[in-house]
Amino acid sequence: MSAFDDLLAFQRQTEALSSIAERLGWDQETVMPRGATEQRAEEMAAIEAVLHERRTDPRLGEWLDQAEPEDDEDRRIIELISRDFHRASKIPARLATELARQTSLAQGVWADARANDAPADFLPVLSDILMLKREEASLLADGGDLYDALLEDYEPGATQAQIANLFDAMRPRLVALREEVLGADFQPQPLNGHYAQEPQLRLARICASAFGYDWSRGRMDIAVHPFSSGRWQDSRITTRVVETDPFNCLYSTIHEVGHSSYELGIDSDYAFTPLGRGVSMGAHESQSRIYENQIGRSRAFTGWLHQRMSDSFDSLSVADAEAFYATVNRVTPGFIRTEADEVQYNLHIMLRFDLERDLISGRLDTTDLVEAWNARFLKDFGVAVDRPANGVLQDVHWAVGLFGYFPTYALGNVYAGCLHRALRQAVPDLDQSLALGDASPAVEWLRENVQRHGGLYRPRDLIEQATGEAVSEAPLLDYLEEKFGDIYRL
Amino acid sequence: MSAFDDLLAFQRQTEALSSIAERLGWDQETVMPRGATEQRAEEMAAIEAVLHERRTDPRLGEWLDQAEPEDDEDRRIIELISRDFHRASKIPARLATELARQTSLAQGVWADARANDAPADFLPVLSDILMLKREEASLLADGGDLYDALLEDYEPGATQAQIANLFDAMRPRLVALREEVLGADFQPQPLNGHYAQEPQLRLARICASAFGYDWSRGRMDIAVHPFSSGRWQDSRITTRVVETDPFNCLYSTIHEVGHSSYELGIDSDYAFTPLGRGVSMGAHESQSRIYENQIGRSRAFTGWLHQRMSDSFDSLSVADAEAFYATVNRVTPGFIRTEADEVQYNLHIMLRFDLERDLISGRLDTTDLVEAWNARFLKDFGVAVDRPANGVLQDVHWAVGLFGYFPTYALGNVYAGCLHRALRQAVPDLDQSLALGDASPAVEWLRENVQRHGGLYRPRDLIEQATGEAVSEAPLLDYLEEKFGDIYRL
Repeated sequence: MSAFDDLLAFQRQTEALSSIAERLGWDQETVMPRGATEQRAEEMAAIEAVLHERRTDPRLGEWLDQAEPEDDEDRRIIELISRDFHRASKIPARLATELARQTSLAQGVWADARANDAPADFLPVLSDILMLKREEASLLADGGDLYDALLEDYEPGATQAQIANLFDAMRPRLVALREEVLGADFQPQPLNGHYAQEPQLRLARICASAFGYDWSRGRMDIAVHPFSSGRWQDSRITTRVVETDPFNCLYSTIHEVGHSSYELGIDSDYAFTPLGRGVSMGAHESQSRIYENQIGRSRAFTGWLHQRMSDSFDSLSVADAEAFYATVNRVTPGFIRTEADEVQYNLHIMLRFDLERDLISGRLDTTDLVEAWNARFLKDFGVAVDRPANGVLQDVHWAVGLFGYFPTYALGNVYAGCLHRALRQAVPDLDQSLALGDASPAVEWLRENVQRHGGLYRPRDLIEQATGEAVSEAPLLDYLEEKFGDIYRL
Repeated sequence: MSAFDDLLAFQRQTEALSSIAERLGWDQETVMPRGATEQRAEEMAAIEAVLHERRTDPRLGEWLDQAEPEDDEDRRIIELISRDFHRASKIPARLATELARQTSLAQGVWADARANDAPADFLPVLSDILMLKREEASLLADGGDLYDALLEDYEPGATQAQIANLFDAMRPRLVALREEVLGADFQPQPLNGHYAQEPQLRLARICASAFGYDWSRGRMDIAVHPFSSGRWQDSRITTRVVETDPFNCLYSTIHEVGHSSYELGIDSDYAFTPLGRGVSMGAHESQSRIYENQIGRSRAFTGWLHQRMSDSFDSLSVADAEAFYATVNRVTPGFIRTEADEVQYNLHIMLRFDLERDLISGRLDTTDLVEAWNARFLKDFGVAVDRPANGVLQDVHWAVGLFGYFPTYALGNVYAGCLHRALRQAVPDLDQSLALGDASPAVEWLRENVQRHGGLYRPRDLIEQATGEAVSEAPLLDYLEEKFGDIYRL
C-alpha cells in the first residue's frame, strides 16, 4: 500500500465515525427520550474524543508528507485532509471533548429556556460555550483574527472583512426595497385559517418528492429547528408544523430537501472521502435557498402548490393562484429568521453577524446580549422584540457553538442568486415543468453543475465554474428587486 | 490518579462508545432508510474497530495488574473488564471488523429473504458468518469447546453440557404437559376479528405504563423482530403489529418493557461502568419473561386487560374475562417461537440449541440447514413447516452472529420461574394490584432484588440471592403444570 492508500483507508474510517456522530445529533433532536441528555452528552464527548485523536494522529502527518497524488481529485483530498489535520492539531483533546459535551448539554438548556422564555437560564451556559469557542478560536487563529478562524470551519477561504464588504454592498438596496415594499399600496392577503398537522405533513412529502428527494436514502421527522443530517446513502430531513402557518412546514421541508439533495447528489465514488461532503456551508445554503426561494417561491411553482393546497385544505383563504403567489411572498415585519421573507432574510443575518463578531472579540458580554439584540432589532426592523423566544433565543446555533455559521446563510443566498441566473439561461422553459409540480429540470442542472462535485472545488470556484461568472451580490439583488417590484406593483 | 481511576476513566469512554454502537443498531432496525445498508455496515465496522482497539488496549493490561480494589464493587469491575480484555485480545481486529460489517449487511439480506421466503438468498451469507463465528470461537476456546466459548458472551459461566442437562430434565415434563393440553376436552376460544394498528399501539403504551416503563427514558417504535436497546437514561423498546393477533403486539411490548426496565432499573451509580448493564442474557430474559408471562398472562392481569381491550375494540370476540384468560394462554400448534405459548416455548429453544451446536461444531452444514430444521420441527411439534419464513428464516439471531444466544431464553424462563415463586411469597396480595392494571408491586420487588444490582453478581448468584434457593427448573415446571392444568381442566 502506498502512503496515499494508507491515508485514504484511515480517512475512510474517520469519515464513517464522523457520520455516526452526525447521526447521534439527529437522534438527539428528533427521537431521543428527553431524559437522556446527560448520557448523550457523554456519548458525544466520547466519539468526539475518538475523532479528535484520529484527526490529530501523527501518522496523518507522515502519510501527507509521503503521499503522491495522481490527479486533481487526489490533490484535493490531500489538501482537505491536510487542512483538517493542521487545524485539529492546534486543539487539545480536552478542549475538543469539553466542547462536544457542553454543546450537547446546552441544546437541552436552550430548548427549555426558549420554551419558558427564560434567557437567564441559558445565558450562563452560553457564556461557558463562548469561553471555550474563544479559546478554540485563539488556538486556531495563531495570532490572526479570531472570528476568521471560526469562519474557516464553515466557509473556507472567506474572511469577516470580505463578508462585511459584501453585506455593506447589499444593505442599502435591501433596506430600500424593504421600505418600498412595506409602504406599497398593494399588499398581499395574509393566509388565514387553521391547517391540521397531518395534511401539512402529507403535502410536505409531496413537495419533497416534487424536488426529487430520494426517500430510499432519507426520511422526514419533526424537530424544533428544522435541519438536515447525513450523507451518501442516508441524508434525513426534518420539518416543523405550525397550524396557523402551513408555509412554515412546506418551505422548511423544501429548504432541507435542498441540503439533503446536495449530499445525496455527490458522486458516489467520493463516499467516505473528504470529497464526499458539501464543500462549504455557503455552497450548501445556495442549494437549500435556490430550492426554497428561487424555485419553490416562483410564480410557476406556487401556481401548482396553490392547486395542491386547495385539494388538501378546505379552508384555504386565498382563492386565486396569482393572489396566492403574492401571499407566499408576502413581506411583513416579523421576529423569526427562519420565517423571514426573501427581502428581509439577509438583514436578520447581518444582525447576528455583527453581534457574534462582538461576542467573539469580547466587545460584547453575554450578560448584555439580550439588550444588544433587542436594540439592534428595533433599529433594523423598527419593531421591539416582544419576548426572548422571538429574539435572542430563537436560534440553536450559538448553543451548539456555531459562531461564524450565520453569515454563510447570506453567502448562500448570494450564490443562489448567481446560480439562478445561470439556471434560467440554461433551462429557459423551466417554468413549464414547475407549473406541473416538477422541479426535476432545475434539480438536474444543479446536480450536474454543483452537487455532484462534492468537495472537489473551492466554494467560490464551484459557483464561478457553474455560472461562468464571478460571484457577485448583483444577480440576487436584481432578482429580488424585479420579483418584489412585480408582486408589489412598485 | 490511581491505576484503578485510569481504568475507570478509560472504561467510561468505551462504555459510551459501545452504547453508541447499540443506538446505531436500533436506528438500523427502526428508522434507517432502506437504501443506507452499505453505509451503515461501514459505520458499524468503523465503530467496532475502535471498540476492539480499546478493548485490547495494552494499557488495560497494565492498569488491571496495578489496580487496587477497595470493595466488592471495585473487585467485580476489575473482574468484568479483565474478562472482556482477555477475550477481546484473542480476536484480531480484522475479524472483529469483518464480523461487524458482515452481520450488519446480513440483516438486510435476511429481512429480504424472509419477506420473499427465499432461504437460498440468505444461506450463503449465513455460511460466511458461520465461518467467521467458528474462527472467533476457536480463538476464544483455546482448544476448549467452541460452543461454550460463544455461550460465554451471553451467559458467563454456563456450559452447553450444563444446559443440555437442564433441557433433558425439562423436556419430559414439557412434552407430557403439551400432549395433555393439546388433547384436553376443554379448549379455549381463539381470538377472532380484526384489530387496527392505532388502537393496538395505544393499548400497548397503556400496558407498558402499567408495568412502569419510564417514557422519559425510553420510546416505542415498530420493528420486524421486536427488541429493546440501550441503557441508563435511554432504553428503547420496539413492537410489531399483526392486525389479526393483538396479543402479538401487547405481549411483545410487555416483554421488551421487562428488558428495558432491567437496564433502567440499575443503580445509576453504575452508569458507564461494566456494572451498568444486565449481567447476562439469561438474567435479562428472566425479567422480560416474568413481566410477559407470570405477571402479564396471569388471571388477575388479563382480567384488567380484558376490560381495556373491550374498551379499545368493538369486535372483541371473547366476552367473558375468565374465557379471555384461557384465550390469552391458549396452546396451539404454531411455527413461530416469539408467538409460542409458555408450554411450547422452551421446545422451540431446544430445537435451535441443538441445530446451532451442530452448525458450530461443523456436524451440520448450512446447505442442509433447511432440511434439518424442517425434520426436527416435524419430530418435535408434529407439523410440517409450511414455508421458510415460518421455519429457519423466522429469527434474526444467526444473521447477526448470535450463536449461543438462544439457550439463554430458556434459562431466562427457568430463572423467571424461580423469581416468580419468591415474588409471590414476598408479595402475597400481588393479584389485587394486577387486577387494577398496576404491576408496580412486582416491578418494585424485581427492581430491589434483581435489577438494581446490574452486573454486580454472577447470574446464578443473583437469582439465588433474590430467591434464597438454588436455581432449578422445578418452580417453572410446577407453575406451568398448575396454571395449564387449571386452564385446561386437566
